[in-house]
Amino acid sequence: MIGQAAGGGAMYQAMTSLGFAAESNFSGPPKLAGAKKGSSVLILGAGLAGMVAALELRNAGYKVTILEYNQRAGGRCWSIRGGDTFTELGGEVQHCGFAKGEYFNAGPWRIPYHHHAVLHYCRQFGVALEPFVQVNYNAWVHSSTAYGGKPQRYRHVQADFQGHVAELLGKATRQGSLDSVLTQEDKEKLLEGLRRWGALDAEFRYREGIATSALRGYEIDPGGGLMTPAKPSKPLELSELLQSRLWRAIAAGQAYEFQSTMFQPVGGMDMIAKAFAKQVGNLIRYQARVTRIEQNERGVTVTFADEARGGALQQEKADWCLCTIPLSILSQIDIQVGAEMQAAINAVPYGSSIKVGLQFKRRFWEEDEHIYGGITYTDLPISRISYPSTRYGASGPAVVLGAYVFEGPNSFEFGAMAPEERVRRAVEHGNQIHPQYADEFDNGVSVAWYRVPGNHGCYGKWTDALRDQHYKALCQVDGRIALAGEHVSHIPAWQEGAILSSLDAIRRLHARATA
Amino acid sequence: MIGQAAGGGAMYQAMTSLGFAAESNFSGPPKLAGAKKGSSVLILGAGLAGMVAALELRNAGYKVTILEYNQRAGGRCWSIRGGDTFTELGGEVQHCGFAKGEYFNAGPWRIPYHHHAVLHYCRQFGVALEPFVQVNYNAWVHSSTAYGGKPQRYRHVQADFQGHVAELLGKATRQGSLDSVLTQEDKEKLLEGLRRWGALDAEFRYREGIATSALRGYEIDPGGGLMTPAKPSKPLELSELLQSRLWRAIAAGQAYEFQSTMFQPVGGMDMIAKAFAKQVGNLIRYQARVTRIEQNERGVTVTFADEARGGALQQEKADWCLCTIPLSILSQIDIQVGAEMQAAINAVPYGSSIKVGLQFKRRFWEEDEHIYGGITYTDLPISRISYPSTRYGASGPAVVLGAYVFEGPNSFEFGAMAPEERVRRAVEHGNQIHPQYADEFDNGVSVAWYRVPGNHGCYGKWTDALRDQHYKALCQVDGRIALAGEHVSHIPAWQEGAILSSLDAIRRLHARATA
Repeated sequence: MIGQAAGGGAMYQAMTSLGFAAESNFSGPPKLAGAKKGSSVLILGAGLAGMVAALELRNAGYKVTILEYNQRAGGRCWSIRGGDTFTELGGEVQHCGFAKGEYFNAGPWRIPYHHHAVLHYCRQFGVALEPFVQVNYNAWVHSSTAYGGKPQRYRHVQADFQGHVAELLGKATRQGSLDSVLTQEDKEKLLEGLRRWGALDAEFRYREGIATSALRGYEIDPGGGLMTPAKPSKPLELSELLQSRLWRAIAAGQAYEFQSTMFQPVGGMDMIAKAFAKQVGNLIRYQARVTRIEQNERGVTVTFADEARGGALQQEKADWCLCTIPLSILSQIDIQVGAEMQAAINAVPYGSSIKVGLQFKRRFWEEDEHIYGGITYTDLPISRISYPSTRYGASGPAVVLGAYVFEGPNSFEFGAMAPEERVRRAVEHGNQIHPQYADEFDNGVSVAWYRVPGNHGCYGKWTDALRDQHYKALCQVDGRIALAGEHVSHIPAWQEGAILSSLDAIRRLHARATA
Repeated sequence: MIGQAAGGGAMYQAMTSLGFAAESNFSGPPKLAGAKKGSSVLILGAGLAGMVAALELRNAGYKVTILEYNQRAGGRCWSIRGGDTFTELGGEVQHCGFAKGEYFNAGPWRIPYHHHAVLHYCRQFGVALEPFVQVNYNAWVHSSTAYGGKPQRYRHVQADFQGHVAELLGKATRQGSLDSVLTQEDKEKLLEGLRRWGALDAEFRYREGIATSALRGYEIDPGGGLMTPAKPSKPLELSELLQSRLWRAIAAGQAYEFQSTMFQPVGGMDMIAKAFAKQVGNLIRYQARVTRIEQNERGVTVTFADEARGGALQQEKADWCLCTIPLSILSQIDIQVGAEMQAAINAVPYGSSIKVGLQFKRRFWEEDEHIYGGITYTDLPISRISYPSTRYGASGPAVVLGAYVFEGPNSFEFGAMAPEERVRRAVEHGNQIHPQYADEFDNGVSVAWYRVPGNHGCYGKWTDALRDQHYKALCQVDGRIALAGEHVSHIPAWQEGAILSSLDAIRRLHARATA
């Protein structure tokens, strides 16, 4: 009815208001009307949380200043390129030797389709996006303790796990084991579904043949003319597949956070940071190491060491303060907030992820193995190898994510190594999957987030218990101070969390400022 | 051992020779040495089969001429753009009104990662490729007879079908129904796998909650700060899901031919045709309608109507002939071949696919529904809607594949309509899934392959029985004539089939010519 009367656009609005497509907390940038003339906000940190706040608050009429510890904007939205130099805690210096145009995203590296705030600003700023290939059926899944350490194709594990599951459930269904929960009609439809989805034969078996090869691929592919006839491939046997636990890797791309279509900015994740900095870069004071955050009923005073001038202490004042400094750092700074917020600041541990970027002389994964983008999973400490989702088929060197040591003992072991040792180990491990590593490796860099000055960790590592106890306190506007960043969100470690947290905080800060 | 002695490159070569990664019939272009000086080949058809043959035969030293019916090269590798005009059998003329930069692939539209020959020539010619998004978890699956005709998100059907299957198999396994085929250890591992893969709870149930929402998405997504708390979504109920048969759509992206990573050329599929034409365009004689193909022990004579000069009959002679004319046309032409090949030429029916390209004023599927690329499946005659896998987030008009009527009664019904009626119907059907269609539709074109002059059909529609009877005869070198094209391959309807067929045919033609 609505559709007929008012056309599709109105119809769609009506549908969305019925909950049809309104899952997001983001429905556009905040409308911050009525800022008091001359009122000011001091923002600590020029990551995405800080810069989006600066943008929206300045647009609302506030006088905005950002203090940033680093010499660059973006925070963890950081891409490393040839010619870049960086120093980690402990003093180790790395000089990146990547070829022109190559990069490595040390922090976030992909954007889900439902991270609407990130996508909104990309669109607003004209940041070009390209698909990030998460699932590649021709990439490897690898266990050092299964199949003699020989990596298996994702498509084999995917098709065979699904096929064996379908065969087992078909068997149970046909022998009547599920009659208490399935009607006769359900059983018929289920069997029809299992046969197709699981590539089962007429007797509901998952067996070597054209049907299973049409999912898992062939021993010899079909060809043209009188070329060698197609030869079906042989499925992995059920028991060995189950024992290998390789099926763990096939669920990754089904998760809401990793489902297609994912994106990456063309040219590196920091294209987003650069786009924000183009808007608010003139508000940023770099190399400002905050040492004290004070407030009273009239305003906020932040003391910082001006590292560009030998660390001389200076002060900046404003009516309000949005602090996006990671809790791993903020817990070491004097900040004048209530006991509950202070307890929250002190309570949250940080992730210890480590990433290694490796440049190889050529795209052997494409040329030799027909792997275009996507991720290989392994139980080795490097945990995964992610191939570039860009410039497919290009000649010359290319950079892969050669290790993403995600939490746990491996990350502490890798974190204790010198950077060049981490790179060496990533090459050594990867060589078990790609024997070309030894010949083709060119140079690499590594970022251990616990050792990054200004971060001391990768992301706020909440548990359910910690959230119950501290999250609400962390989110309050404490006098004239509010906190923002991925650590003040339910989407930790993601840029969307940082931006949504910031938009929520400035909305409430603005409400208080205009009350 | 090999790895240690000779480095990774040699190791990889050894692995591939052990069958590790050697599934393809393509290992590079053919090496055609020793062509007789001055010998000539006449090629009929400047599609990909004809042009790749021209390229390789010319490089081998043959004098090559191509006769082409159309005024353009590429054959079914055909992209339609604004300003293009084309006439179908029956005389209906369409003028395409797409915006600058927009296009619609009337024929092939995607390239699997294992179509090595197509990818080889793309790389050789520098044809830029970008990912073709086949599976989009946020696209729709739609049945006009299920869920009140309301489309469902792919991710809901995918997660819920898998989850219910996991729950059912978990139940059967735990109650001992599969003890005859599973060891105790297998059972434990299987249950561990089902719980994770199917997002089951501690009691092996697939239920509304955070675990299932982490796969299927939330009713309200997690946010930042104090935004509305995340709310889990409610899974589709098993029986209704089975009856809907919507699970049929979720297997599509798992097929070997449609698995990620798929590609499309940047700017339209015919970038491949144009790249070939850049190499061999000077060998092509356009608007040459072949009417007779004769041979004797000395050579081949082809008679053709020169449509650029009022249809005057002319002749072209050569030592050898490679004929890539579709069998739907060739069966209507006098060709001097043996009875078995003639029977094969006459035997193969052709597919009747119809495609409709629709331009809309804006990317409402992205802006309103967060669908970036990928395919929506429906049981309506249009069968699917494919969103552009390029220029994500762009402003202005964009073209979708609005119908791919693939075989069957619907294709005959659509084929009988005037082109503008096909477009109107595609809009009408699509509007049931996207209510924005009515407001946002701009203009469209349609290609009914049965009505395309020079094709009279989409692709050679082999059955197993037909192959047993005729395929081998079709592949022979008959005197001085060989056939090539997707119809002379085991990969019908794909460009890879056309190219491999052609490479195989010229290899054997060359062997005979140099014998």
